[in-house]
Amino acid sequence: MQYGSASSKIIFNCDFILDWGLLVMNFLELSEERREALRRELEEKYQAFAARGLQLDMSRGKPSAKQLDLTNDLLVSVSQEAGVKCRNGVDCRNYGLLEGLPEMREIFAELLEVEPDEVLAGGNSSLNLMFDFMAQCMYHGIGGQPAWMTQGRVKMLCPCPGYDRHFAVSEYLGMELVCVPMTPQGPDMDRVEELVKDPLVKGMWNVPKYSNPDGYTYSDDTVRRIACLKPAAPDFRVIWDNAYCIHDLSDTPDRLLPIMKECKKAGNPDLVMLFASTSKITFPGAGVAAVAGSKTNLAEIKARLSMQTICPDKINQLRHIHKFKNAQGMVDHMKAHASLLRPKFDVVLKTLEQELGGTGIARWTKPNGGYFISFYALPGCAARTVALCKEAGVVMTPAGATFPYGKDPKDSNIRIAPTFPPLHELETAMELFCIAAQLAALEHLAR
Amino acid sequence: MQYGSASSKIIFNCDFILDWGLLVMNFLELSEERREALRRELEEKYQAFAARGLQLDMSRGKPSAKQLDLTNDLLVSVSQEAGVKCRNGVDCRNYGLLEGLPEMREIFAELLEVEPDEVLAGGNSSLNLMFDFMAQCMYHGIGGQPAWMTQGRVKMLCPCPGYDRHFAVSEYLGMELVCVPMTPQGPDMDRVEELVKDPLVKGMWNVPKYSNPDGYTYSDDTVRRIACLKPAAPDFRVIWDNAYCIHDLSDTPDRLLPIMKECKKAGNPDLVMLFASTSKITFPGAGVAAVAGSKTNLAEIKARLSMQTICPDKINQLRHIHKFKNAQGMVDHMKAHASLLRPKFDVVLKTLEQELGGTGIARWTKPNGGYFISFYALPGCAARTVALCKEAGVVMTPAGATFPYGKDPKDSNIRIAPTFPPLHELETAMELFCIAAQLAALEHLAR
Repeated sequence: MQYGSASSKIIFNCDFILDWGLLVMNFLELSEERREALRRELEEKYQAFAARGLQLDMSRGKPSAKQLDLTNDLLVSVSQEAGVKCRNGVDCRNYGLLEGLPEMREIFAELLEVEPDEVLAGGNSSLNLMFDFMAQCMYHGIGGQPAWMTQGRVKMLCPCPGYDRHFAVSEYLGMELVCVPMTPQGPDMDRVEELVKDPLVKGMWNVPKYSNPDGYTYSDDTVRRIACLKPAAPDFRVIWDNAYCIHDLSDTPDRLLPIMKECKKAGNPDLVMLFASTSKITFPGAGVAAVAGSKTNLAEIKARLSMQTICPDKINQLRHIHKFKNAQGMVDHMKAHASLLRPKFDVVLKTLEQELGGTGIARWTKPNGGYFISFYALPGCAARTVALCKEAGVVMTPAGATFPYGKDPKDSNIRIAPTFPPLHELETAMELFCIAAQLAALEHLAR
Repeated sequence: MQYGSASSKIIFNCDFILDWGLLVMNFLELSEERREALRRELEEKYQAFAARGLQLDMSRGKPSAKQLDLTNDLLVSVSQEAGVKCRNGVDCRNYGLLEGLPEMREIFAELLEVEPDEVLAGGNSSLNLMFDFMAQCMYHGIGGQPAWMTQGRVKMLCPCPGYDRHFAVSEYLGMELVCVPMTPQGPDMDRVEELVKDPLVKGMWNVPKYSNPDGYTYSDDTVRRIACLKPAAPDFRVIWDNAYCIHDLSDTPDRLLPIMKECKKAGNPDLVMLFASTSKITFPGAGVAAVAGSKTNLAEIKARLSMQTICPDKINQLRHIHKFKNAQGMVDHMKAHASLLRPKFDVVLKTLEQELGGTGIARWTKPNGGYFISFYALPGCAARTVALCKEAGVVMTPAGATFPYGKDPKDSNIRIAPTFPPLHELETAMELFCIAAQLAALEHLAR
């Protein structure tokens, strides 16, 4: 059975993924009668849930209200006393400083492990910075090369499952999305090294630490192999969306090898563009985002940016600087987030283990940070599981969303986003989710 | 003489522009000896200025520090007490509301005289909203039409003198810039109506109230003729950058006819895209910008925007709402700006009148609002005037900047930006400017 063997392969690589098919009550080994009895029992429980008229949203990686409370002093922290000038004497209330405040660039330089002059601190959205960079490559070109759009039907490598908004950007821009399997060590690098021999392959999306949705952190070997890539396209760019760079859940966080240093060692400084934001450190939508890259790449970005805007919101950057002082201030602050998030991840994992452990119909990841738990249903069961949840009042991320074009070829992956709902709602939602997953599996096995 | 006749033509249209050639000391009527004596006298004054080591910047339309002080309570005005939710119950600290806060959309709807559901309240930069809209038209198309770039070498109408950053956006995107003469009533509409018969003409830039740099407000007739345009291109769009919509200097402000209403009357609701921001109401770079247009146009913008970002900075919008409550609150606030700006405009106009009145070598505008005074030197003298200023330590907007490709065919127009320097510096700068203008003219006449 293809599914079983795929799972076994992963087990060898990654001991924190549940094996299936080994424990008791394995659905796949039950008789048809037992399955049908079980289905009726679950159907009854499901109807009881549906009757409660739930309205829970677990679809997006949003911080909870309690997490937002952690940063409420940002609402009031720039005062005349604290001063409205940044270190270099610029009045942050007026036009100027296209590249952002020097203090802010330093903070992001530390978070992304690059030099301060390799950073532009921008507005409120790293997605916007990525969109604009990709649009620039597509329509104007990068690295002194002709615009991507003039070179044919260009392609973007999409490690998957991955972040739907990444895929959507390159699809909107007219690129072809090429799926690369994700592993617990990062994208399948054998496949990547093969694919970049095609000069039409122009880049690769990455969430290298606590990947969305799996929560995997790229291994040192993966980072080095990426840094050493010699793509056929001189204008190939690695998009390094380090969205969860300091978003650890445990006291023994994953450690990501600094890619810029590796790129420089490999003589490949222009290969990578890095992105990050404080969206999930302070306020989503009211934080500060940054883009980093070689000075050559940044100069090309600034040439476009100077046409596009006069400067970022420096007052908001100043608020962040007054609050955190430096990168360590942000790292310390993230411990408070972790204290709020850990119990939520624990509820999800506990419920999954309790309800689905040993059933043979699901596996899931146990990340050390980030915003998601990645759930793998029996192939063919993800969409039905999500639909059952929705009918009973719990909105999950649509099945397939984690794959290019919204199509999971196995219809297996579901992204669980535990951060937003309060704990008691999360418990309810996960109970329902596990019932839905079992029902979907039993329906599937009955076919 | 072509120059004289051009000036006479304008005098008939606009009584606040100085006539030249009628008063005493007209440079053009002086003997060569008198001119040389005058030049030596001015040269001496100029050298005295140069020796002072001035470092004054009059190049950009930036508010002064005192103007920024007017809004300092914005630095601290969102507090937990005031609440972090907007009217519809959304927590502004979290993701959501791609179209901005309903309260903010209402304020901009009043300022731009459109309906609230015809507004998207965005980030900190209206220039960015314009750039993104133009890029969308160019690369993806608007109004269900093919992308502009696929239709040939498309053109943008540029009333000139005009705003250099507008011209730069369309130039960056690869459009051809077509100059349309500006008059005190707005762009030469006979010319515009002729030009839009070309299906490659895709749009026109406008600063319709207190235009940059002339300070003209489009007449009712001009607004109606624009609203009634029937361009050959179905995807022609009027860019209506109402940057100075409430930036009046006098108690009898200019009144701009609401273009959206006129467009609707003419059955042309999709023709116009409106833009505005609070950059010069609150803080440049830390204000709120908005785009408005028909629901059809907005739906196309939102389709792109939803790929590009998750939401604007709602906390900053909330700050603005808490401070101003509504559009009237902003209008009232602008009176304090006017009190600070009026003396500066007066200094410029008084010095120009005193030093250059009757010399026949210059004319200038006397705007009722906005951020600029437009100065017209004797043709061939603008670049030299600006260079002389620079050499003596006063940076003006580069001559030519107000024309497409930075090239003023007459080398005559200079944009004077009086808002940023303190009053005493402005007096000094204007004295020097008038000396430079006279020297440049005398050099020119001596050739």
